[in-house]
Amino acid sequence: MTKELVFGHQNPDTDAIAAAIALAYLEKQDGYETEAVALGPVNPETQFVLDYFGVQAPRVVNHAQPETDQVMLVDHNEPQQSIADIAELKVTHVVDHHRISGFNTAQPLYYRAAPYGCCSTIITQMYSEEGVTIPKEIAGLMMSAIISDTLLLKSPTTTDVDRDALQALAEIADVDNYEDYGIQMLKAGTNVAAKSAQELIDSDAKSFVLGGKNVRIDQINVVDLADVNARLTEIKTAMKTEADAENYDLFLVLVTNVLTSNSELIGVGEPQDVVAAAFGNQFDENDVMQLPGVVSRKKQVVPPLTEQLQPTK
Amino acid sequence: MTKELVFGHQNPDTDAIAAAIALAYLEKQDGYETEAVALGPVNPETQFVLDYFGVQAPRVVNHAQPETDQVMLVDHNEPQQSIADIAELKVTHVVDHHRISGFNTAQPLYYRAAPYGCCSTIITQMYSEEGVTIPKEIAGLMMSAIISDTLLLKSPTTTDVDRDALQALAEIADVDNYEDYGIQMLKAGTNVAAKSAQELIDSDAKSFVLGGKNVRIDQINVVDLADVNARLTEIKTAMKTEADAENYDLFLVLVTNVLTSNSELIGVGEPQDVVAAAFGNQFDENDVMQLPGVVSRKKQVVPPLTEQLQPTK
Repeated sequence: MTKELVFGHQNPDTDAIAAAIALAYLEKQDGYETEAVALGPVNPETQFVLDYFGVQAPRVVNHAQPETDQVMLVDHNEPQQSIADIAELKVTHVVDHHRISGFNTAQPLYYRAAPYGCCSTIITQMYSEEGVTIPKEIAGLMMSAIISDTLLLKSPTTTDVDRDALQALAEIADVDNYEDYGIQMLKAGTNVAAKSAQELIDSDAKSFVLGGKNVRIDQINVVDLADVNARLTEIKTAMKTEADAENYDLFLVLVTNVLTSNSELIGVGEPQDVVAAAFGNQFDENDVMQLPGVVSRKKQVVPPLTEQLQPTK
Repeated sequence: MTKELVFGHQNPDTDAIAAAIALAYLEKQDGYETEAVALGPVNPETQFVLDYFGVQAPRVVNHAQPETDQVMLVDHNEPQQSIADIAELKVTHVVDHHRISGFNTAQPLYYRAAPYGCCSTIITQMYSEEGVTIPKEIAGLMMSAIISDTLLLKSPTTTDVDRDALQALAEIADVDNYEDYGIQMLKAGTNVAAKSAQELIDSDAKSFVLGGKNVRIDQINVVDLADVNARLTEIKTAMKTEADAENYDLFLVLVTNVLTSNSELIGVGEPQDVVAAAFGNQFDENDVMQLPGVVSRKKQVVPPLTEQLQPTK
């Protein structure tokens, strides 16, 4: 049996870490030799979660080879969001809740996707289908992932399946009031003052190829939009420098107030007019667009941009 | 609720038809408004199955629009094997047991794949997970699909999950001896004499893009390889004409003896030397290569060709 690494996307968030740990455990019960790893250090929100449930952060890796050439992906499928040597690896399993894009294999594989708010929700279903008991601390991690991805069930990505999974996981994890816990957890991830501009634009950033353009989209969670606006010049300079260095045509940062569920979008690079058209809205003179009610990059940002940049399906 | 069409690949085989009917029924229980359709007329094997279990052949369609713009795919995902207007449609569900290639979406969706011998095996699992009783005639169709795709469990694509599903389905379908039934069914699909050369090279053909080449691969099931060899000149002429007309760089026809599990490969177009290298074998002066023990296009033909034509992962 070949050892397989199990990991989420680059710049791991709580779901990427929780889903990797949960799938690695589940597949171990099926006889696979698995290890959950991470494509980067955990963020402050995830560190809060790991500390709370007494779980160690997964080992950080950049390459799978020479250690192994078989891997399982969670919470992503697009190659540019994955491990550096993904093109040389055999992907045997994917569990994901995103669009499918640029993901090609030479062989049949296990692929499990559903349009739920959180990848850990799908894995919760899989435990149930396979009759595997969820260990208490893994239930705590998956519960936290659902809270994180759905902003306490307030994101439009939230489904009834996420709601049910969150209830069930909170019970197994022995968390009496998941709302109180969730607000504590979300706040732990929003300390803007403690981060450099570079850290802010990096920490939750993902790359997309949309209509032939290299698009980078970051999301910053805050409890007060003013925290970011006060540092706008500094943040935009960091975005431009990074866009030049990494060849991004367009760099967008979605700043989301996790308490009010409103966002602002900061945009540098081109085509800005296409972004404006995608949201039926305008950037102001500081390159900031108001997006009231927008909290989901996946459901409310990537689809209209995709539609505007590469109108196909 | 938008009506959704559910269909398998072009040149439908028994699994493409059975899986479409079975998934359409299952999703109806979940509240979707579905209709199973087919991207072409059923083949003689499938007609035998439909007659045996008293099911009507699905309506044949070429386009989903203007009837609907939402569809569910079974037994395929590659766009060139799908409905003509696939690029304009929203795919909400996929259930498949093939490699993933060229399949991209703008939105998250339900995707369920497993490396089993038959797509209907996955759908059998889904019925069980969702606690839905399989109607007798649908069990008969799915049982037949497993027999067809695995050549009575003899193909190397066969897994224990296929074996278990076949047993369970035969019981529900009230078929006492599925081996006897299976041989009858496979023979019904192998009447080479009744078909024109054009029909022979078309009936189970699929298109692939491999290393930038347009590759067409057909499979003909026979009970005696001599039936095809006697008509080799006629068949090769039809292959060349079709390759010219449709811009195929390479046209391969895998002729499989369903009783002995051996095949011959007929090849026209280029690069023939790459095909030879892929199988570590040679075409003879009649462009025929012996492939003893090869019965699976998916597991024994496409992967070595992919590896040879576009060595990546």
